[in-house]
Amino acid sequence: MKEKNLSMLCDFYEFTMGNGYFKNGFWKKQTYFDVFYRSVPDKGGFAIACGLEQVIDYIENLKFNLEDIEYFRSKGFFDEEFLKYLSNFKFTGDIYAVPEGTPIFPNEPIMTIKAPAIEAQIIETFVLLAINHQSLIATKANRIVRAAEGRTVLEFGSRRAQGNDGAIIGARAAYIGGCDGTACTLSDEIYGIPAGGTMAHSWVQMFDSEYEAFETYCKIYPNNATLLVDTYNTLKSGIPNAIKAFKEILIPQGINNFAVRLDSGDIAYLSKKARKMLDDAGLKNCKIVASNSLDEYLIRDLLIQGAKIDIFGVGERLITSESTPVFGGVYKLAAVEDNNKIIPKIKLSENVSKITNPHFKKVYRIYDNESGKAIADQLCVYDENIDTSKPLTIFDPHNIWKKQTITNFSIKELLIPIFKNGKKVYNSPTINEIKNYCAKQVDSLWDEVKRFENPHNYYVDLSEKLWSIKNTLIAQNNCK
Amino acid sequence: MKEKNLSMLCDFYEFTMGNGYFKNGFWKKQTYFDVFYRSVPDKGGFAIACGLEQVIDYIENLKFNLEDIEYFRSKGFFDEEFLKYLSNFKFTGDIYAVPEGTPIFPNEPIMTIKAPAIEAQIIETFVLLAINHQSLIATKANRIVRAAEGRTVLEFGSRRAQGNDGAIIGARAAYIGGCDGTACTLSDEIYGIPAGGTMAHSWVQMFDSEYEAFETYCKIYPNNATLLVDTYNTLKSGIPNAIKAFKEILIPQGINNFAVRLDSGDIAYLSKKARKMLDDAGLKNCKIVASNSLDEYLIRDLLIQGAKIDIFGVGERLITSESTPVFGGVYKLAAVEDNNKIIPKIKLSENVSKITNPHFKKVYRIYDNESGKAIADQLCVYDENIDTSKPLTIFDPHNIWKKQTITNFSIKELLIPIFKNGKKVYNSPTINEIKNYCAKQVDSLWDEVKRFENPHNYYVDLSEKLWSIKNTLIAQNNCK
Repeated sequence: MKEKNLSMLCDFYEFTMGNGYFKNGFWKKQTYFDVFYRSVPDKGGFAIACGLEQVIDYIENLKFNLEDIEYFRSKGFFDEEFLKYLSNFKFTGDIYAVPEGTPIFPNEPIMTIKAPAIEAQIIETFVLLAINHQSLIATKANRIVRAAEGRTVLEFGSRRAQGNDGAIIGARAAYIGGCDGTACTLSDEIYGIPAGGTMAHSWVQMFDSEYEAFETYCKIYPNNATLLVDTYNTLKSGIPNAIKAFKEILIPQGINNFAVRLDSGDIAYLSKKARKMLDDAGLKNCKIVASNSLDEYLIRDLLIQGAKIDIFGVGERLITSESTPVFGGVYKLAAVEDNNKIIPKIKLSENVSKITNPHFKKVYRIYDNESGKAIADQLCVYDENIDTSKPLTIFDPHNIWKKQTITNFSIKELLIPIFKNGKKVYNSPTINEIKNYCAKQVDSLWDEVKRFENPHNYYVDLSEKLWSIKNTLIAQNNCK
Repeated sequence: MKEKNLSMLCDFYEFTMGNGYFKNGFWKKQTYFDVFYRSVPDKGGFAIACGLEQVIDYIENLKFNLEDIEYFRSKGFFDEEFLKYLSNFKFTGDIYAVPEGTPIFPNEPIMTIKAPAIEAQIIETFVLLAINHQSLIATKANRIVRAAEGRTVLEFGSRRAQGNDGAIIGARAAYIGGCDGTACTLSDEIYGIPAGGTMAHSWVQMFDSEYEAFETYCKIYPNNATLLVDTYNTLKSGIPNAIKAFKEILIPQGINNFAVRLDSGDIAYLSKKARKMLDDAGLKNCKIVASNSLDEYLIRDLLIQGAKIDIFGVGERLITSESTPVFGGVYKLAAVEDNNKIIPKIKLSENVSKITNPHFKKVYRIYDNESGKAIADQLCVYDENIDTSKPLTIFDPHNIWKKQTITNFSIKELLIPIFKNGKKVYNSPTINEIKNYCAKQVDSLWDEVKRFENPHNYYVDLSEKLWSIKNTLIAQNNCK
């Protein structure tokens, strides 16, 4: 397989613009770009930020080799001077980002890039791809895990993923979002996402009888026996054969740690029937795994109907986030430096909600000290500070008469430095630290924000200063 | 970035089963697995097979290195003898597949793997992932291209793709399905998918005025000027500024090959207004590119409403196949060899349509000689032949009284040998050969099969012999 230089995973227009900036002298101009998203997948109340580690890897390995330069030359669009610049290309800017696992809300920066124009453009495509993909899957996983109410959730979707990284890195994002493990061996080897698995239908079909298939498996893996019981008929043959195999091979060895897996049919009905058959046979410890086209909606309904499931294996609807397969993160110019002054920039739109928040910004999350819950996020201009010793009045930027004064609160700055002058200044947490951080941060949200349907709209407000800059720019730029 | 060994992109249970087969002696047993899918994405009439080249690459590079073996050892599940076997692992089997670009229908094998049990299991996950992902995107691209009725369609979705390969290989599948190019530079460098692109909103925002941004671009790229006209106000400033730049910079040089791009607002309305403004200014050659959340449904509606669009840039809804983001290809055991005899195997299901078609099979596509159109596909047992000199009676396998006798027909065998005894025996076509083949094959389908909504159900029938084997197995295996 050909080696892929991910520096080339870049929309072609980044290079035409880059060459343009190189020629017209804009290439050294410092720019500020924000990454943010506009609407929560599945109409939920929040998303989970994920993908930063892959951005860091990418930035640290950015380079264009001779083969790449030759490719550009062959296109006939680019100046030799620009190609020379590309062949020595390095990222020299600053990157601020919210840590992976942080709950994030629409229209607030989740990453800010300060860099010379060409550099900031060239990284756009990959940054968005990494953040969009992993935030999508982490968000979906978090919904599914919350629906499972403490039961184990495993990611089983590799075969239906959209491409290799869809599976490999998707399993990473699913784990951060709250899954307990994956079926993907490579994700375990690379990222330490615990991988497991036992048998497919083909195992059962390979033997002359279902019982023989189960018996053989229990003998080979006495401590890891999850028997797939739906190859022929779940209740008439699968469960009875599994009970027989457990009783004849495992129980006599004192082993009580086994399971059956249901992969078709009506899981609510079958799991209740199977549970009764197992209990009646004295196998109360036998766990039931279910794995048939599950997502948060079906899991919630199964549990409401009293399905007896201990472990959920979730496939295609998680690994592709089937119900909302796109995370619409965008990358927008927020400011440009001119004579060492930061000039805020705006992009207008006939659709008011698509107008960008200009300027180099800070994002504060405001917590109520009494409950420990997050109340609102506030976007400020980079040189503003919030004084927690005084009451803080926040307002809805679209309906400024909607005001609220907050006392007894604390704040956390969400965007933290990842790169300074092209050097990484961030201590990357381990995967399990990220996963635990995510769970804790989700706990800091009110239940109203976590509702699947019609959740409370968490407040993302602008400081008075930022609001006023934004409105001045709208007036200036309309009909430029 | 860590080197990824795609041989490890494999569900963990393939290895637990593999180790099991190694221990119980089944590992040398020849097995036959079919890859097929059950329902067409977007309720369409057919899908496009794609992903074979990535399967070939994968098979030719299958290996487990020392690091992988060490990983397996650390899991504590596997015998040392099996790990030794894995460290020398090579694929030694046969693979038959339909060529990339072939229209395919539910429940017919699109790939058949004949290999010793362990080998056939270990390749399952990757084979499905590659075929599922690329067939999904090629199928979606083909729908979008058909909706565009001969207009240029470009793939613009990298930033919203599900992972790196979602973008890189997704662009390849989109090109095979009919797109004319991509924005993804790496897909051009690796696969030769023509990449292009001009400017983002940030280019316009970088300048003090929109006109200055357009003027600068036209001067740098006089022969590749597509100006993005919606940064401030499409009709009040974008189009007038573009017209001015074309007239002042390009027309005096005799250049007539330029375009404007609409990326927001109501594209039907804006494109008609923009067309009139351009025409009134004497710029009848100026093309109009549209690129805002497009798919086959919106493109069809825009064209019905008389939108004036020459080129469609299609992003997230293509690269994720947003409306149906999963291609449900499965990998099912069809037969096992015992004493050099091929024993057909079946997987039952309470859902009749999920019962597999057993045995090592051939797939014939039957063409009407008069119209040249495909009439039906017939699945036969591997040792059957169709005699085209005699009338052929085909029947619906679910309703066997539905019969049809065909005369004056020709046949084509769809599954062709790709690997024999682990050696590649297939001359891979070029990407453009695949693309052209795809377009021709889609032409061989009746319009009724190509309808987006409620298409004619193309016939996928069983030979009498295969039908009778299947029904005997159902009777035998029910309640095994």
